[in-house]
Amino acid sequence: MGNLPAFVEFREEGPREGFQMEKRRFSLKARAKVIDALSETGLKQIQVASFVSPMAVPSMVDAEELFKAISPREGVRYTGVWLNKRGFERIVELPGAYLYGKMVLYTTDGFCLMNNNCTAEEMQQKELDFLNVYDSYDLPLEDAYILTAFGCNLSGDVPLSTVIDYVKFITGVCRNQSRPLPNIYLADTVGWANPEEVKRRIEAVRDTAPGARLGLHLHDTRGLGAANFYAALQMGVDLFDSSVGGLGGCPFAGHKNSNAAGNICTEDMVFMCHELGIETGIDLEKLIAAARLTEEIIGRTLPGKIMHSGSLSTFRKHC
Amino acid sequence: MGNLPAFVEFREEGPREGFQMEKRRFSLKARAKVIDALSETGLKQIQVASFVSPMAVPSMVDAEELFKAISPREGVRYTGVWLNKRGFERIVELPGAYLYGKMVLYTTDGFCLMNNNCTAEEMQQKELDFLNVYDSYDLPLEDAYILTAFGCNLSGDVPLSTVIDYVKFITGVCRNQSRPLPNIYLADTVGWANPEEVKRRIEAVRDTAPGARLGLHLHDTRGLGAANFYAALQMGVDLFDSSVGGLGGCPFAGHKNSNAAGNICTEDMVFMCHELGIETGIDLEKLIAAARLTEEIIGRTLPGKIMHSGSLSTFRKHC
Repeated sequence: MGNLPAFVEFREEGPREGFQMEKRRFSLKARAKVIDALSETGLKQIQVASFVSPMAVPSMVDAEELFKAISPREGVRYTGVWLNKRGFERIVELPGAYLYGKMVLYTTDGFCLMNNNCTAEEMQQKELDFLNVYDSYDLPLEDAYILTAFGCNLSGDVPLSTVIDYVKFITGVCRNQSRPLPNIYLADTVGWANPEEVKRRIEAVRDTAPGARLGLHLHDTRGLGAANFYAALQMGVDLFDSSVGGLGGCPFAGHKNSNAAGNICTEDMVFMCHELGIETGIDLEKLIAAARLTEEIIGRTLPGKIMHSGSLSTFRKHC
Repeated sequence: MGNLPAFVEFREEGPREGFQMEKRRFSLKARAKVIDALSETGLKQIQVASFVSPMAVPSMVDAEELFKAISPREGVRYTGVWLNKRGFERIVELPGAYLYGKMVLYTTDGFCLMNNNCTAEEMQQKELDFLNVYDSYDLPLEDAYILTAFGCNLSGDVPLSTVIDYVKFITGVCRNQSRPLPNIYLADTVGWANPEEVKRRIEAVRDTAPGARLGLHLHDTRGLGAANFYAALQMGVDLFDSSVGGLGGCPFAGHKNSNAAGNICTEDMVFMCHELGIETGIDLEKLIAAARLTEEIIGRTLPGKIMHSGSLSTFRKHC
C-alpha cells in the first residue's frame, strides 16, 4: 500500500464554492439545510460563505445571515473566507464562526491582479501585514495557501522553483517571527496539475519545509482530479479541500464554462479512501444523502458520480 | 516516473457504448459524422455498433447501414460487437468491418445470465466453441475479456482468485490449442475498482500470464476512473478502452441513473498521458473537437471535462 495515510481529513468547501458559482440565488433556508446536512456527516470543517463585497459576489450579500441560520454542531468548524481586513472583521464579529489565521499567496501576477487588484509581490507584503491583525486577536497562522501552484490560465506554466520560493517565504517568516509552521496548501486553482507533477511538487515542498503538514486544494477542471488526489495519497498527504457533489470553481478563473471548473468531489474521494482502507471519520451514506439534497436544491445534475450510482455497501449487503 | 509506458493505445468505444445508452434515436448521418470525426484524430480502433437483436437494443437496428454510412480511413479498424454466431456472421458480411477473434468471460452468474441467458460456466463453453468459428475464417484470437473483474452489482465482490482462474482458463486453452496468447482485458464493467486493487490484480494477472499484453476497460461509475487509469499506467499498462466525452455505460448493468455509468473519457485520459510525457498518436485538439461535436448531437452535457475547459495548449501559447 506504499505511503498511504491511515486517516485523511477533508475540509468541505461546497457551500461557499458552490453557491458562489451559481447564477441563481438560493434562499437562506435552503443553504442552511445543506450546511446542516453536511454537519451531520462527520466533516469537521465547513466553509460557509465569503465575506467579500456584494458588488463582486452578489450571492454572498447575506453571509452573516447564513451563519445565523445554520444549526451549529459541536466539534464542527464553520469558516468564512475573507480577502481583506474588513471582510475578516465581519467574521470576527460573528458568534459561530471559527477564527484562525490564513495566508494566501499567488504565484502569478495575472491571477493576483484579477482577484486582488495587486501584484503577487504586493500580495506577499499585504499578507505579511495581515499577520499583525491575527496577532491582535491572538489567532495562530494555521494555513498558508499557494494558489495556481501548478499553472495559471493567465500566466501559463508555473515553475516548481517559483512554488519553492513561496514555501521559503512562508518558512522564513515563521522562523523570523518564531511562529509554528502552518499547514502549507498547494492549490491547483485552475486545473493544471497531473499526478506525476503532484508527486514531484509535494516531494520538493517537503524537502523545503520538512516540519509542515501539507494540504492540497484540487479542481477537476480537466478530469484528472481523482488521479491527482490518489497521487497525493501515495505521497502520504492527509489534508484536502473538496466540495460536496463536485460543486464549485472560481468565478474568476477564466473558464468559459462553469461546468468545467468544480473542486474534487468530497463523497467520491471519501469513497476512494474507504475502498483503500483509509479512515476519514465520515459517514459516506450520510454524505451521499447530503450531496443529493444539494443537487435537488441547485436544480441541475452535479458532477459527482457516486451520488448518482450509489456506494457499494448496498450491493455488498444483499449478496 | 516509475513504470509508466512510453506509448498508450486507446480503443474508442463511444459510438457504440454512447448511442446504445441514449434513449433518443439519432440519424445515421449524425452517428457517421461522429465516427468520421474520431477517425481523423489518430485513434486506430473505433467500435461502431452492436450486432445484436434489435429487440434487445433497438438503437442498433441499423448497424449495417451505419457501417456503410461512414467514410473509412486507411489504418483505422472499425469494429462491431457480437454476442453470438448470428451477430458475428452479420459482421463478417460487412466489407469495411475489422474481423478478429474475441473471447468474453463473466466472473459471475448474475451478470452473465442477464446479458447472455446462461451461467458463467456455460459461457466459458460457448466461447470455447466459438473459437472454431474464428478458426473457420482464419481469424486469430486477439482479445480475451474478463467482465466484472473487480466486482458485480448483482453478485457483489469478485475475489482475485476467481479472476486468476479465468486467466488460467485462457492460458490453458491457448497452450492446449497452440494459440498465441490474446490481449487479456480486465473490465471494471460496473465501477467497483479502486487504484490499489487495479495494481494488485494487474500484478497477479501478469504473474499468471507473463507473456500476455494486458488491457483495461474502466468505467467512471463512482468517480475513480482517472485514478484507476493512472494506477494502471503506473503498472505499465498500455492498452485501454475508453469513450469520447465519457459516453456510455452498459444498459443492463443495474444502475438507475444512466449519467452514472460512463466509460473513462478518451480525451481526458489522452490529456493525462500527454501531460505525463506518454505518447498516444492522437491529436488532442481534434479529439476535443470530436467530443464537442458528439455533445452537440447527443444534446446534453457529457461527463467529459477537458471538452468543456479546453486543453492547456492555448493557455501555454499566449503566455
